[in-house]
Amino acid sequence: MTDALDPALETQLNATEETRHASLLEFLRIPSISALSEHAGDIRRAADWIAEELARIGFEHVEVSSTPGHPIVYADWLNADGAPTVIVYCHYDVQPVDPIDLWETAPFDPFIRDGRIVGRGSADDKGQLHMHLRAAEALFVVRGALPVNLRIVFEGEEETTSASLPGWLEANRGRLGADAVVISDTGFFEGNIPALTETLRGMLYTQIDVTGTPTDLHSGSFGGAVENPANALARIIAALKDRDGRVQVPGFYDDVDTLDDAAKARLAALPFDPEAYRAQTGSGPLQGEVGYSILERKWTRPTLDVNGIWGGFQGEGSKTIIPAHAHAKVSMRLVSDQDPDVLFPKFVAFVEAMCPPGVRVSVQFLGGGKPVRTPIDHPVAQAAARALEATFGRAPVFIGAGGSIPVAEMFEHQLGLPVILMGFSNPDDHAHAPNESMVLANYETGIRTICVLWDSLGSANRG
Amino acid sequence: MTDALDPALETQLNATEETRHASLLEFLRIPSISALSEHAGDIRRAADWIAEELARIGFEHVEVSSTPGHPIVYADWLNADGAPTVIVYCHYDVQPVDPIDLWETAPFDPFIRDGRIVGRGSADDKGQLHMHLRAAEALFVVRGALPVNLRIVFEGEEETTSASLPGWLEANRGRLGADAVVISDTGFFEGNIPALTETLRGMLYTQIDVTGTPTDLHSGSFGGAVENPANALARIIAALKDRDGRVQVPGFYDDVDTLDDAAKARLAALPFDPEAYRAQTGSGPLQGEVGYSILERKWTRPTLDVNGIWGGFQGEGSKTIIPAHAHAKVSMRLVSDQDPDVLFPKFVAFVEAMCPPGVRVSVQFLGGGKPVRTPIDHPVAQAAARALEATFGRAPVFIGAGGSIPVAEMFEHQLGLPVILMGFSNPDDHAHAPNESMVLANYETGIRTICVLWDSLGSANRG
Repeated sequence: MTDALDPALETQLNATEETRHASLLEFLRIPSISALSEHAGDIRRAADWIAEELARIGFEHVEVSSTPGHPIVYADWLNADGAPTVIVYCHYDVQPVDPIDLWETAPFDPFIRDGRIVGRGSADDKGQLHMHLRAAEALFVVRGALPVNLRIVFEGEEETTSASLPGWLEANRGRLGADAVVISDTGFFEGNIPALTETLRGMLYTQIDVTGTPTDLHSGSFGGAVENPANALARIIAALKDRDGRVQVPGFYDDVDTLDDAAKARLAALPFDPEAYRAQTGSGPLQGEVGYSILERKWTRPTLDVNGIWGGFQGEGSKTIIPAHAHAKVSMRLVSDQDPDVLFPKFVAFVEAMCPPGVRVSVQFLGGGKPVRTPIDHPVAQAAARALEATFGRAPVFIGAGGSIPVAEMFEHQLGLPVILMGFSNPDDHAHAPNESMVLANYETGIRTICVLWDSLGSANRG
Repeated sequence: MTDALDPALETQLNATEETRHASLLEFLRIPSISALSEHAGDIRRAADWIAEELARIGFEHVEVSSTPGHPIVYADWLNADGAPTVIVYCHYDVQPVDPIDLWETAPFDPFIRDGRIVGRGSADDKGQLHMHLRAAEALFVVRGALPVNLRIVFEGEEETTSASLPGWLEANRGRLGADAVVISDTGFFEGNIPALTETLRGMLYTQIDVTGTPTDLHSGSFGGAVENPANALARIIAALKDRDGRVQVPGFYDDVDTLDDAAKARLAALPFDPEAYRAQTGSGPLQGEVGYSILERKWTRPTLDVNGIWGGFQGEGSKTIIPAHAHAKVSMRLVSDQDPDVLFPKFVAFVEAMCPPGVRVSVQFLGGGKPVRTPIDHPVAQAAARALEATFGRAPVFIGAGGSIPVAEMFEHQLGLPVILMGFSNPDDHAHAPNESMVLANYETGIRTICVLWDSLGSANRG
């Protein structure tokens, strides 16, 4: 086999386009939102749906594996004697849909139109999971076998920081022997240029809760004499970053690598257009940490964002109260050797120090993951690069990702396996936002990329 | 007549206690929330309920008078020849009930227990409105007439800054001739000591809206490069006050009187216990503008509070977004000659100056009212003081109020009438908050105070 798509697979994929798309839309219609407990049944339904597909396609040992949270779907096919074994990871849970009023169509009524698959999960990550199902199906149908050994690990808690996965990996260590892990939960570079992701930022996700009084107070009777939790929360948040975009938590930058000139040059050489990136968001002028380019800010510098804030009266009109309490979700993206477990107590101490007297503050740890650097010279990474070039017609660029995939760090650190981040979403996918979509060509060509990669790994090994 | 309750009125009130209480609870059960448009029908129902009562009791020219907003209930009885004419103002609208989870009982399922009337509106202001109905009813039943001429003006938009009242006063100027206005929408002093309110703070109520992008963004892909509207909002709010509690808007204090030593001494002489005041709220240590006592802060100094704040993800768990927009309701309490119309543009300019680049900010004017100083040496004010002493057994103290009653300023400035603020709620009434209540003894004795006041005014005039 060479690094080109087997024509028999191309014929099979072309012949099944309609049923493949119907299956994708059926999968996307399941509102598998992991963050909201009322969707636990939908999560379970999505897991069962995948398990049925895996069994039907030809995988063995299919299992909807219980965890303290949402289930992990496991399956394997280990009959490619002499070929390498690869763990394939995707996730079937999706982000919540709010603000629902900004969706142009119903998030769980997906459709394919004008070259796009539109709907929650189309890009992140159910669409990519579905590509792996269809690539394996094509191989099973055409050959009755896979060219490599695969272990499927499809998770349902990625959007809530994969809380159950470490325990599951530990408990299942015995059946997770492999040569590498391929994770498809990343995307292409700006301009929809094929890419392999070399670095991922880590994550520290917190909730700050400021409490004043047991009940709301009349702002006339008590305003000016009792501290206001919402004003206090604003003061705390404002103190977290200075006007140059530097996080003010002492020790925050201790484990952040300084970029050398060569690294800066490599980033500067990428075909990145800050104006196109800005225009894609509809944002005003780009901002961020002073002294760094946009790509440096995204991939090599940590940052801090309020993901949500609330307290007091949010209705129509006016209500003259001092809110009893106020809250914010605050998350940090981490780089280099920053460790969420090391940073959390520093963050808590700083928040407590910034809290004005008269109110109380507490900080919850909602999740975390270390930054990841993948081995881009590993044979599987190199094979993936060749497969992308063979199918998309241009060599991939090696990029960083601003986002976090805690599971990458878990596979790397817990199982000691090389992790390859081969993802297919387009940069304007609106992941985590209203009107999420995936470019249909990325989905279709990506299925072929996966087939080429498995063939390449199987053939290389056999020789 | 003297400044003592006519025994026939006492007998009548004692005989009707049960029906009066049933009527009060019936009135409180109507969820007349003016801020929420879905309650417009309830507001109308409350107005109709009052109109029927007024007509039944014996008032004339009863009218549910339409406005661009909620109706004003007007009635009069002008047959006390030679006696003065008093406008009685109360409001029948109430605050929203959120946070509903902090109510120990249903806000619109009121009850009387352990010496308290409990439910939304019991103190602010439907309970006090009901006292005026019952005082007049007792006089009509016992005497077939009132000792004074009364014009009833009961409003339904007080909790949303009385937007329609100025136009209505202007349009009805012809039938609003009077010697004074008695407003019952204030309360007693700490320790539940009878009080007449001499000063009211004014109000400037705004909403700050910060907009970043048309949709939420993935905080991994864009965090650190795109300004975050929630972080920006926190920065704006934090800039509004310094750590000494001083509002930072340039010119904010231009029209604030400096307290002289005599005024400070008068305030210091009041039987005020800061610790009891603090304990009543469940707050931590009291805070506020450095250099002023608690009563000075409440009554003689302006302040600024966030009444509500919201943006981004507020659900369970974590969602890694940069919110598309973030919002806050911010109100200021005004004193002395501060004018909301003068301050609003200064506030807007400051907010705009504090907004970081990369996001847009706009400010809405949601309402305002000037501060008020009442003529405490006016004969009606002095008669009110005597009536309170005669019924409650101790002379009232003259106090300020931290709250705002824009309508007091409207009567004073539009109609040129002296305004007397005689209110009966208890300081721990939880107005605008969960578990609102009124002390039953204030309600019962206050009905008698009103009877004594009308008798006193009628008798004084007739000599």
